[in-house]
Amino acid sequence: MKLGELAERSGCSTATIKYYLREGLLEPGARRSATDADYDEGHLRRLRMIRVLRDVGDLPIAAIGAVLAAMDDHDRELHDVLATAVHALGPRRNLPPREELEPIRSEVLAWVEAHGWEVSPDAPALDLLAVALRGARQFWGDTGPEIFERYLLIADTIGEGDLRHIDPIEDMADTIRQMTVGTVVWEQALIALRRLADEHHSRKRFRAPRGA
Amino acid sequence: MKLGELAERSGCSTATIKYYLREGLLEPGARRSATDADYDEGHLRRLRMIRVLRDVGDLPIAAIGAVLAAMDDHDRELHDVLATAVHALGPRRNLPPREELEPIRSEVLAWVEAHGWEVSPDAPALDLLAVALRGARQFWGDTGPEIFERYLLIADTIGEGDLRHIDPIEDMADTIRQMTVGTVVWEQALIALRRLADEHHSRKRFRAPRGA
Repeated sequence: MKLGELAERSGCSTATIKYYLREGLLEPGARRSATDADYDEGHLRRLRMIRVLRDVGDLPIAAIGAVLAAMDDHDRELHDVLATAVHALGPRRNLPPREELEPIRSEVLAWVEAHGWEVSPDAPALDLLAVALRGARQFWGDTGPEIFERYLLIADTIGEGDLRHIDPIEDMADTIRQMTVGTVVWEQALIALRRLADEHHSRKRFRAPRGA
Repeated sequence: MKLGELAERSGCSTATIKYYLREGLLEPGARRSATDADYDEGHLRRLRMIRVLRDVGDLPIAAIGAVLAAMDDHDRELHDVLATAVHALGPRRNLPPREELEPIRSEVLAWVEAHGWEVSPDAPALDLLAVALRGARQFWGDTGPEIFERYLLIADTIGEGDLRHIDPIEDMADTIRQMTVGTVVWEQALIALRRLADEHHSRKRFRAPRGA
C-alpha cells in the first residue's frame, strides 16, 4: 500500500509516519520510484502498536524504540525478550536513584519471592514498589511489605488471567505486541476502574443517609 | 515545636517547609519572636501528607494544593469533599481534550453505572478509562467496554477492601488524609505488583522447559 493508505488504516498522519521512519522505528517501504514506496501489513501492525503505546501508555518515543528493539532481537528466548520489552515500558515516572532505594528494594524483592514469584531483580516495578512501601512507612509508621499482602494476592489473580489471553505462540513478534499493548491498556483500565470503585464505595460508606 | 524539629520529624528540609509556607500549603506557626515560630502536631500531620503525595504520587504542588483546599472546605459534606480531593489527584497524565473523548466517555460511564456503581460524571478516571477503551479498539478492533469486565469485578473487590480500612470518622481531615494518601500509595503498589505478577506468569508460560 501507499503512504496515504498506510496513514488512513493506521490512524497516524503521514507526517508522523515519516518521523517514525527517520527515527528508525519503522523499516523503509519497498521503493517503487524515487518518490514512492510500498508498505505492507507488517508496517501497519507496527504502526498500530506504536500508536497505542503512545496514546494509552503515554510513552516517550525513546521508550517505544526500546520495546521495538527488544522485539527485533531474534537471538534470544521469548521470555527474555518479553522481560526486556515490558521493562522498557517503565513504570515511567520520577523515582529516586536506585542506590537510595536499595535496602527497601531488596526487602520487597525477598517478599515477592517468598510468595513464589520469579521476577527479574532489574524489574523497574520493584523500584516503584519500594517507593510505595517507603511512603507507607513515612505515613503509617514502621511496617513491612506485608501491608501489601491483599494487593499481591489480587495481582496474582490478575496476572494469571492476563496471560491466559496470550496464545502460546508461533509468531514471537505477535506475542510481544500483545503483551506490551496489553500491559499498558489493561494497566490504565485497572487504574481508572480502581479509582471509580473507590469513589463508589466511598459514597456508599460516607454519604449522609437520605432525609438526614 | 521549632522549625528544626518539624523538619526532622516530617522528613522535609527547612527550605522545603518554608517553600510550602510561602505557597500557602501550610499555615504559619504561632509567632514566638520576630524570627521564631511554634509549630504543632497539625503542621506535622499536614507535612507528612504532602510528602507522601509528592514522593509516592509524583504529584505537582498545584495538585497537592487542590487536595488541601478541598480538605479545608468545612461547609460541604464529607463524600463531596472526598470526591473533590481524590479527583485533584488525577490520574495526572497527557490526555486528549474531553470533547474529543465525549462519546466514548459516555459509553464507559453508562457501563459502570449499569454495574451499580455511582460515580461523579466529572471523575478524571472516566477520561482514562475512555482512552484505554479507544486504544483497545484501535488495536483489537471494534469492542465495547465489556472487554474490561474482568477488571471491573476485581476493582470492585479492591475498592470494597480499601474502604474497609477507613474508619467511619469523627475527624474529617483525618479521613481525607487517609483516603488521599491511600489512593496514591495503594495505586502505585497495585501497578507495581500487577507488573511483577505478569512477569512471573509470563515466565511460567513462555520459558523453554529446562534441558530443552
